[in-house]
Amino acid sequence: MLRTGMEVRRACREGALTGPTCGLAPGYAQANLVMLPQDWAFDFLLFCQRNPQPCPLIEVTAAGSWTPATAPDADLRSDLPGYRVWTNGELVDEPADVHQYWRDDLVSFLIGCSFTFETALVQAMLPVRHLEVGCNVSMYRTNVACTPAGRFSGPLVVSMRPFKPADAIRAVQVTSTFQRSHGAPVHLGFPEHIGIADVARPDYGDAVPIHDGELPVFWACGVTPQAVLQAARPPFAITHSPGKMFVTDVIES
Amino acid sequence: MLRTGMEVRRACREGALTGPTCGLAPGYAQANLVMLPQDWAFDFLLFCQRNPQPCPLIEVTAAGSWTPATAPDADLRSDLPGYRVWTNGELVDEPADVHQYWRDDLVSFLIGCSFTFETALVQAMLPVRHLEVGCNVSMYRTNVACTPAGRFSGPLVVSMRPFKPADAIRAVQVTSTFQRSHGAPVHLGFPEHIGIADVARPDYGDAVPIHDGELPVFWACGVTPQAVLQAARPPFAITHSPGKMFVTDVIES
Repeated sequence: MLRTGMEVRRACREGALTGPTCGLAPGYAQANLVMLPQDWAFDFLLFCQRNPQPCPLIEVTAAGSWTPATAPDADLRSDLPGYRVWTNGELVDEPADVHQYWRDDLVSFLIGCSFTFETALVQAMLPVRHLEVGCNVSMYRTNVACTPAGRFSGPLVVSMRPFKPADAIRAVQVTSTFQRSHGAPVHLGFPEHIGIADVARPDYGDAVPIHDGELPVFWACGVTPQAVLQAARPPFAITHSPGKMFVTDVIES
Repeated sequence: MLRTGMEVRRACREGALTGPTCGLAPGYAQANLVMLPQDWAFDFLLFCQRNPQPCPLIEVTAAGSWTPATAPDADLRSDLPGYRVWTNGELVDEPADVHQYWRDDLVSFLIGCSFTFETALVQAMLPVRHLEVGCNVSMYRTNVACTPAGRFSGPLVVSMRPFKPADAIRAVQVTSTFQRSHGAPVHLGFPEHIGIADVARPDYGDAVPIHDGELPVFWACGVTPQAVLQAARPPFAITHSPGKMFVTDVIES
């Protein structure tokens, strides 16, 4: 298994890792990626400031830089398992590397990811279903609106993990301290109350079984910016592919 | 005494309050103010993101708006006891009201203030010297550099409260949870280690006595942006006058 942020990044760069990063490099902070042209960067930074639960900022690079302080040897253009390229809010490509799309006016935003706190859930003996099954986490668009900022507005996206009630309570406690990785859940129990018609059909990632006596527990998700980009339609953007995160050198526990 | 954010703001607007806001409206979050033209706003927002201890963001308004969500009836142009107006990094005016300086391209940043946690210190039976004496808090420029962002860089400014050692330890515990009000101290004990030559001569606010057996305890301060503005020299800016804060409707405890 890939045990550190550096090992994951190297595997991505060499093309050896193209799948989701959940379960990899336990304890290392994982990050969602959004790259936007400089003239859209203020509005997006403000969007993150106003929506800290879906968009907890780990780092924002200078325009034109692909080297984050949280992983100084990294190249943000190649060190994720998969990217999405957007023009005018439309998904136009899903490459494994974005060197060919790079522009010197791009500002990169690294946003905390719930994969970071899964290590702590596992250490607390709480079963994380998609890790047990060996697939990507389930993610859904909700009918909960984010706080708008400039040209950006849109729905909250959430990730879901099923737990027995006592484990759900413990999961609230464990994740509450992970402020930079979405923190405590935003909802539990009634998917329809937040606009999710069918938990068996996630909008992103993979479906996982929910057993009898389990509650679906929902956390704010760093895929939210992708739903917001589709609504705001900036002329150009690059993001990670859902579940295929940038893994930093930062230990979070 | 003025007991709520609304009472403080009304007294400012009517010209009845022109002094520091420490000790007023206990429990209500107080805020430092920075107003900058839109084309400087991204760099400053990034500066705050990279320096959360001196610049914990409470709110950022849309350009041209003087109405914050944290005090919906307020007018940021009149509801502080005193302002500073800056051109090219030079202080050019200290008016009680900035209606005459208002521009439709100004973005307002509200930044947490240590006055907010003083209520909790007092409730914990910890003596806050400048409240006992009835003056403004002592503030100092240090030789600690903030993390630069775009055109902004400069020294950390700190506020100081003297405590006996056991009380200093308790003050660390009490303030650690106030993340949006600068949180835990950044230093204690040796002013010269952070570039303060003489604690009896603060750069901002008033001097307070330090008794035998007391340590000076230093917190990151929201006057930091003013030192940074002097270095970055934006063509225009408005800030609060040190110690004369904007008081919100938000209860922090």
